[in-house]
Amino acid sequence: MARPIVFCSDYGLADEFVGVCHGVIARIAPDARIIDLTHGIRAMDVRAGAAELAGSVRFMPDDAVYLAVVDPGVGTSRRGIAVETAAGQLLVGPDNGLLSLAWKELGGAVRSVEITSEDVILRPTSHTFHGRDVFAPAAAHLAMGAPLESLGLDVEAGSLVTIPMPGPQIADGQIRCGVLGIDRFGNVQLTAREDDLSRARLDDKRELLLETDEAGVVTLTRARTFDDVRSGQAALIVDSAGWLAAAMNGGSLAEALRIRVGDPVVLSPIG
Amino acid sequence: MARPIVFCSDYGLADEFVGVCHGVIARIAPDARIIDLTHGIRAMDVRAGAAELAGSVRFMPDDAVYLAVVDPGVGTSRRGIAVETAAGQLLVGPDNGLLSLAWKELGGAVRSVEITSEDVILRPTSHTFHGRDVFAPAAAHLAMGAPLESLGLDVEAGSLVTIPMPGPQIADGQIRCGVLGIDRFGNVQLTAREDDLSRARLDDKRELLLETDEAGVVTLTRARTFDDVRSGQAALIVDSAGWLAAAMNGGSLAEALRIRVGDPVVLSPIG
Amino acid sequence: MARPIVFCSDYGLADEFVGVCHGVIARIAPDARIIDLTHGIRAMDVRAGAAELAGSVRFMPDDAVYLAVVDPGVGTSRRGIAVETAAGQLLVGPDNGLLSLAWKELGGAVRSVEITSEDVILRPTSHTFHGRDVFAPAAAHLAMGAPLESLGLDVEAGSLVTIPMPGPQIADGQIRCGVLGIDRFGNVQLTAREDDLSRARLDDKRELLLETDEAGVVTLTRARTFDDVRSGQAALIVDSAGWLAAAMNGGSLAEALRIRVGDPVVLSPIG
Repeated sequence: MARPIVFCSDYGLADEFVGVCHGVIARIAPDARIIDLTHGIRAMDVRAGAAELAGSVRFMPDDAVYLAVVDPGVGTSRRGIAVETAAGQLLVGPDNGLLSLAWKELGGAVRSVEITSEDVILRPTSHTFHGRDVFAPAAAHLAMGAPLESLGLDVEAGSLVTIPMPGPQIADGQIRCGVLGIDRFGNVQLTAREDDLSRARLDDKRELLLETDEAGVVTLTRARTFDDVRSGQAALIVDSAGWLAAAMNGGSLAEALRIRVGDPVVLSPIG
Repeated sequence: MARPIVFCSDYGLADEFVGVCHGVIARIAPDARIIDLTHGIRAMDVRAGAAELAGSVRFMPDDAVYLAVVDPGVGTSRRGIAVETAAGQLLVGPDNGLLSLAWKELGGAVRSVEITSEDVILRPTSHTFHGRDVFAPAAAHLAMGAPLESLGLDVEAGSLVTIPMPGPQIADGQIRCGVLGIDRFGNVQLTAREDDLSRARLDDKRELLLETDEAGVVTLTRARTFDDVRSGQAALIVDSAGWLAAAMNGGSLAEALRIRVGDPVVLSPIG
Repeated sequence: MARPIVFCSDYGLADEFVGVCHGVIARIAPDARIIDLTHGIRAMDVRAGAAELAGSVRFMPDDAVYLAVVDPGVGTSRRGIAVETAAGQLLVGPDNGLLSLAWKELGGAVRSVEITSEDVILRPTSHTFHGRDVFAPAAAHLAMGAPLESLGLDVEAGSLVTIPMPGPQIADGQIRCGVLGIDRFGNVQLTAREDDLSRARLDDKRELLLETDEAGVVTLTRARTFDDVRSGQAALIVDSAGWLAAAMNGGSLAEALRIRVGDPVVLSPIG
């Protein structure tokens, strides 16, 4: 039985990009289940794609082949890679750091190859759509059991592009971190976790200040869910992925703060 | 063979919520087909989700397991339930009425349990994403043949939350009803059916008035399809689900009338 | 094993239309894989749907059954058809030209029937949703191996509606063509191919002018990928489907030019 393929991209669903990749996969691996993790990654936002992929791996099948495409460098000399993790999963995508947070989450990369095989890559090969011509067929062949080395030559592990997980800077009474993600409800996911609050000795505060560059300071009330604060009030919760997240009951906090992924923020006590 | 899972939510497709639930299901039920009914229910609109689910059941497989999540009360004390219908289908979701119109359509609820089993619910359990941690695994276990009682203890049928189907008030020459749904073309689905026209003695009128709170009165021409009226004209048709629907040929009537789901409207004769 | 079904429509994913068709298919062909090519065709744009379908067939399984619905004439007397191609694929949809570019790409239509069988069409049959009541069940029966003639009587090949592929008019130093498609990045796909440039003796020009009706003239630099020009500059590339496409690095050219599918454009040399 073919391994399942977890597919994540910034292609959106308005065009045929995702459907064409599904077709390419179905030609090679007619029985492989495809799990569309999301195709709504912000266009070209490699960091956001990497974070979303890494945050999702523990909910995916243990034998999954990951196919991820957020690829601003398509058509340039950046490599296409396939990576095997310590836990046995396989990841396919551009060598731009997109896969790096996921393989870290999966125990580290134990082996990787550059995808160059003529038996894998579709011809003619587009300069702009390697999802279809390089990555989808590579993932499909792996799902069918093809060995990693059938895709191309080994790549030195140290040469793979990685992106640093944007960790928080903790001081006494202060957390400097960033915006990791923003969902459709306008909830703002921060690059800090619950235990960072205790490390910064902020865990006993009922209210905290969130400082942003654009829109000044907003007061966040610690809460378990969005419903624990009054409508229109902003809350600081632990979100479903374990991150601290700022949210507004009944509204979009991201919109109210004109905040975007990657923006720096500071958490501090009141007064 | 695993039973198919019909999945309906207000998660949208911009984020990874739906994909993560697919992953959770695939871990438990690798062969279960997932039918994504829609994830475009208006956020938190339990009534709209209930109506859409109920309207779709007769087109779904007879052995379907329904997984529905529109859940403004997530993280509060509202129960998570699994319900068995007279026709043998299973429904999983929050106990907020979301499932109630569907089980009514499927012959009624014959048995229900509260989902509490430690073998089903994922740990740690998020306070904000029970779709992933409670409902998706419950539906997947049911699809694999797990008995209802393996999810948790029986719930008294009378204690389940239901929502009344918003029926029309019929008088001679008048139908007071509401907006049940609005589709992407701006067609306005009403909570009244074709035979309500005859009950109100309006079935012989070629034209009717539709009165709204926001935008006054518009004239609707009875028609079989949108194409039977001239471009820019408004029509009253029987839609594909059997409801009366007001539509504008070549435009969005909902936009023109600034009308929303739940708004009250009145149908009456001209003059 | 059931044949895979490639499904393409203008239904969008905000409503339940696509999900309901999936349900109808799953009732008839529980094991058939469904490849959702796209449901983002511009509403009622038969030409855009036909072009997208035709451009995708070479990436789909060879035994695919195509289900395509862009159907402004639903509920009128336009026929529903199923077509067999020279290469053995089957296509199902309205007889409005939507399928015609695809069957041409697949070697031509060798046989076709009008879908009329009472054993196929769902009752009651909606006047507005033949995707659900006529086309999805027809495609599902074909995927299960039902012979073409079980759907209805033969249709004279010459009577099928076709749409002309909007080809370019080539003169010395000039290509008059149209906008075939616009993707979510605002890239503008033209109805001309790379070799049309040499036919117009424009292939040695590093820069070309693109003239539009709405927004005057813009200079395009020949490039291999979007990244070969500076941010904000417009480029002319060969896109992943082999068409000439105009794009702006880091922005939406379509928006900048206020251009839409079907608009006429002219490519000419500078000076």
